[in-house]
Amino acid sequence: MAKPTKFLNDTLGEKIELLLKDGRVLIGVLIGYDDHMNLVLEDTTEETEDMLRRIGTIILRGNNVVTLNPI
Amino acid sequence: MAKPTKFLNDTLGEKIELLLKDGRVLIGVLIGYDDHMNLVLEDTTEETEDMLRRIGTIILRGNNVVTLNPI
Amino acid sequence: MAKPTKFLNDTLGEKIELLLKDGRVLIGVLIGYDDHMNLVLEDTTEETEDMLRRIGTIILRGNNVVTLNPI
Amino acid sequence: MAKPTKFLNDTLGEKIELLLKDGRVLIGVLIGYDDHMNLVLEDTTEETEDMLRRIGTIILRGNNVVTLNPI
Amino acid sequence: MAKPTKFLNDTLGEKIELLLKDGRVLIGVLIGYDDHMNLVLEDTTEETEDMLRRIGTIILRGNNVVTLNPI
Amino acid sequence: MAKPTKFLNDTLGEKIELLLKDGRVLIGVLIGYDDHMNLVLEDTTEETEDMLRRIGTIILRGNNVVTLNPI
Amino acid sequence: MAKPTKFLNDTLGEKIELLLKDGRVLIGVLIGYDDHMNLVLEDTTEETEDMLRRIGTIILRGNNVVTLNPI
Repeated sequence: MAKPTKFLNDTLGEKIELLLKDGRVLIGVLIGYDDHMNLVLEDTTEETEDMLRRIGTIILRGNNVVTLNPI
Repeated sequence: MAKPTKFLNDTLGEKIELLLKDGRVLIGVLIGYDDHMNLVLEDTTEETEDMLRRIGTIILRGNNVVTLNPI
Repeated sequence: MAKPTKFLNDTLGEKIELLLKDGRVLIGVLIGYDDHMNLVLEDTTEETEDMLRRIGTIILRGNNVVTLNPI
Repeated sequence: MAKPTKFLNDTLGEKIELLLKDGRVLIGVLIGYDDHMNLVLEDTTEETEDMLRRIGTIILRGNNVVTLNPI
Repeated sequence: MAKPTKFLNDTLGEKIELLLKDGRVLIGVLIGYDDHMNLVLEDTTEETEDMLRRIGTIILRGNNVVTLNPI
Repeated sequence: MAKPTKFLNDTLGEKIELLLKDGRVLIGVLIGYDDHMNLVLEDTTEETEDMLRRIGTIILRGNNVVTLNPI
Repeated sequence: MAKPTKFLNDTLGEKIELLLKDGRVLIGVLIGYDDHMNLVLEDTTEETEDMLRRIGTIILRGNNVVTLNPI
């Protein structure tokens, strides 16, 4: 079985797409996480239909996450 | 009795439909879960009336789940 | 005293009606539960004024539940 | 001091009025509770200005409760 | 330092005003509490601009509380 | 490092401004707190653009707090 | 791996940008945090399109945080 934390661990160093509860989509390289699904991302960008904002390295609080997937 | 975690375990490898709190419907193959009902899905698609979006492998945070059912 | 979990246990195998926080009403046979009031239902249907949708066996995450009652 | 759980215990067998977070009002006889304030009610009715719905015995999940009072 | 629970204890037997998350204001005599700030009030009334409703003795679930103050 | 609870402790006896999740702003003297950031304030006032309401001593439940700062 | 708390620790003394759940953006120097991601910031300002408000030293409750990033 692919436990969520094991899958997170296998995804370290990879580019992921994050969908947040407020509808925003972030893209970045996953470089850290913890048991609450708090995440650390590098080279993060926020993408909307008409905008791309570069944010760099961020901490994202886990309770805002809906889904995350490698891209 | 069919404990929810036992039912999740029996459902590993099967195609499921997920209804999320924000109303979205995801379909994918369940390949992992944990005690918070965080899930790992493969071959995931998001389906709306006029759209089918392929997302691949995702982690879904458990507190967004309303219901899940094998299909 | 009828502890909620004891009442849930006595209700195993019976048809119940579930009212969810998002206003939806589900009807099904209770075949499992856990301490978070996560539920497993069989022969589940969702009923609205002008619609009846058959969903089959589902897991319902407990924090969506408002009330449940045998019918 | 009247600890909330002690007060709940003293109220077993009595008719109570429940105000829920979604604004609904339920009336029933309290026959069980647990530490999360999950409740079991008998002879439950939901009362609105122009409607009285008989629901019978229900489990109510504690995190929907605003107030409860014997009537 | 006045720990919140110590202050609650000192307030037992006094008339308090409660502001709830849904905007309602309750006034009553505090006769019990627990660590979740669940409260028991006696002689409770709900006051709005054009209405005073007598509710008697109530249990109030702590997670609905914004502020409480002796009056 | 200035741990949040240490900073709270250093702020005892000082006048603080509190921003709550519902947008309200309270000003008072911090005289107590606990690990959930439940607070006790003295000489509390609520200030809006066209109103100043004196509330006196209050307990504020921590999960309503967005920010607090000495003023 | 860059654990979120390790990343927070490495960011002590640096200027960060905070995005809150209510949409507000705060900028300040991170001088403290705890395991709930409660934060202490110095020289904090709130920036909107047409406004810059100086708030000084603040405690921010962690459950309001969406993202934080050094700037």
